[in-house]
Amino acid sequence: MALGILKTTHGEIQLPVFMPVGTKATVKAVPPKDLEELEVKIILGNTYHLFLRPGHELIKKMGGLHKFMSWNGPILTDSGGYQVFSLTKLRKITEEGVEFRSHIDGSKHFLTPELSIQIQDALDSDIKMVFDECPAHDSDRTYMKKSLELTTRWAKRSKDEWQRLGKNGLLFGIVQGGMEKDLRLESLKQILDIGFNGYALGGFSVGESKDIMYDVLSSTMDQMNIIKAPIYLMGVGEPEDILFAVNLGVQMFDCVVPTRNARNGGLYTFNGKISIKQARYFDDPEPVEDTCDCYTCRNFSRAYLRHLYLSGELLSYYLNTVHNLRFFMRFMQKMRISLKNSNFEQFSADFLNNYNKDIA
Amino acid sequence: MALGILKTTHGEIQLPVFMPVGTKATVKAVPPKDLEELEVKIILGNTYHLFLRPGHELIKKMGGLHKFMSWNGPILTDSGGYQVFSLTKLRKITEEGVEFRSHIDGSKHFLTPELSIQIQDALDSDIKMVFDECPAHDSDRTYMKKSLELTTRWAKRSKDEWQRLGKNGLLFGIVQGGMEKDLRLESLKQILDIGFNGYALGGFSVGESKDIMYDVLSSTMDQMNIIKAPIYLMGVGEPEDILFAVNLGVQMFDCVVPTRNARNGGLYTFNGKISIKQARYFDDPEPVEDTCDCYTCRNFSRAYLRHLYLSGELLSYYLNTVHNLRFFMRFMQKMRISLKNSNFEQFSADFLNNYNKDIA
Repeated sequence: MALGILKTTHGEIQLPVFMPVGTKATVKAVPPKDLEELEVKIILGNTYHLFLRPGHELIKKMGGLHKFMSWNGPILTDSGGYQVFSLTKLRKITEEGVEFRSHIDGSKHFLTPELSIQIQDALDSDIKMVFDECPAHDSDRTYMKKSLELTTRWAKRSKDEWQRLGKNGLLFGIVQGGMEKDLRLESLKQILDIGFNGYALGGFSVGESKDIMYDVLSSTMDQMNIIKAPIYLMGVGEPEDILFAVNLGVQMFDCVVPTRNARNGGLYTFNGKISIKQARYFDDPEPVEDTCDCYTCRNFSRAYLRHLYLSGELLSYYLNTVHNLRFFMRFMQKMRISLKNSNFEQFSADFLNNYNKDIA
Repeated sequence: MALGILKTTHGEIQLPVFMPVGTKATVKAVPPKDLEELEVKIILGNTYHLFLRPGHELIKKMGGLHKFMSWNGPILTDSGGYQVFSLTKLRKITEEGVEFRSHIDGSKHFLTPELSIQIQDALDSDIKMVFDECPAHDSDRTYMKKSLELTTRWAKRSKDEWQRLGKNGLLFGIVQGGMEKDLRLESLKQILDIGFNGYALGGFSVGESKDIMYDVLSSTMDQMNIIKAPIYLMGVGEPEDILFAVNLGVQMFDCVVPTRNARNGGLYTFNGKISIKQARYFDDPEPVEDTCDCYTCRNFSRAYLRHLYLSGELLSYYLNTVHNLRFFMRFMQKMRISLKNSNFEQFSADFLNNYNKDIA
């Protein structure tokens, strides 16, 4: 059951929860005061990006990430593992860690489990993630097995470093294993043995088909459902994926889709996604969604949003992002209510029916 | 004396006033709710841009510019004259109007005094401007004289069209004449003879030197000071220019400098302008200006603003623009108070002393 409460230094979070991504110490285009108004409860910061620019030492000197970006709610930081493997070139993986070149200026860096935790400690995030290897989803089985074992050893070293630094905030472990069900369980067992404040599933939504993702996720969650700690599906996802995962008991999500799609004119509604640039909205006086209570929907027409988008106006990014984030918050809230009222199945069926209406 | 009150359909405005520019139905990067918080009292919309995209018919259909952009305060629209002469190529000026090609797609259009007023009427702005010719500041005297006379005939036709359409909102005339003092007075006399709700000075801050601008402005204002209607210096300007003009009795200003400079990292303070990208701000924990009450200064350090700017983050545009607009609003308010208290001269000296401190 996905319902729950997560306590952090910066407040309690109702689960299941969606965490907007604030990569470079800002959720793109939206000031923190508006995040509060949208009822965003926790955001994610990217260790890799903040390490490279402006640097974790600077952020520590400025009083930590919360103060630096003026966000007083909880923050989860990832470990940099995923970005090292997805954004950089010329990587060299050893037992000790990963050598890579910055995607910004090509400068050489060496990231280890210890350094990742030290960076996250300097950022002073509420939830820290262990440093993991993120292999390509289509790596062969032999590599996957070796990789998950390396991730386990790195998880242990991450925890040791976190303990050495005084157990600041919560530390989550990460289960890897690719799309091999038995390897997932092996990874899970090893990570559970070490013991963490929460458990994340890494390596999903990285190029595999939805059928395979859903199948492996289901099989893994069968074994995780009894865990009395938050379960976090990293980098997921679209509303239908979240719905599927919440049904399995997953409690935490993060994804760039609401913010990134907003900047490309893609807007979420309970009747499906719309592309605001379409000619059909040219003189449409209606808001994006008439049941939505966000600033954008209370004040602006689709015609206006289309005009801003086509004109490349900065306000377009703001208004679209505000709406999409509010959609995700409302979506999660409706799920929590349906879980409380024991009618999640009905909610889920109704949601999918409306959301996919235009496709059918 | 610049002190005064201007009554419009959407509320009263304390003069002297600065009008932020909202070219394409948005003050770039800032939602209208924040403009209100910044105590912006009136904004400017650009007839040329809105005519080309999204089109004034659409905006009329959507309930006018106020409703379209969700701004409930007063709006002044320019006539499109300046943009036709500064942004377009292949212009052809006749007695009837100006043929030009759109800077967006090269499409051919013909703008006349009547059409300019019709567009502004469709936009439903509170203050409309007559259609004028804007000659280059270094045009020869013969051309300047011919041009100001054409502007006078177009002003008359603009007023006739405004009357025919039911005198919706206020209509301001525009004085031209370039940098020739006697031509300025000739233009002024002709425009006063027609009679308008307010009088604007066009053709300043278009490339001439500051000395010449100040000299011609002073000489023209000597004759305008007795006018019992608002006086508006179009497209000006920097704080020191506004200060100079307010001292002469000018009451209304608009300029892109606060918003455009903000997007380039240029921030206004009462101790002079700063460029937030400078290395000296790398670890500066102070706000842009510690006496400023804007959201940016209340919550963010120079170090954070520098990071956002260097990272190309969208929030940089918002936070910088919010600060600069608030600076201009505070600056105008301080001027109004000093005028009320009859210590404008002292305020002016103190302001310039602090503002130019770093230069001295």
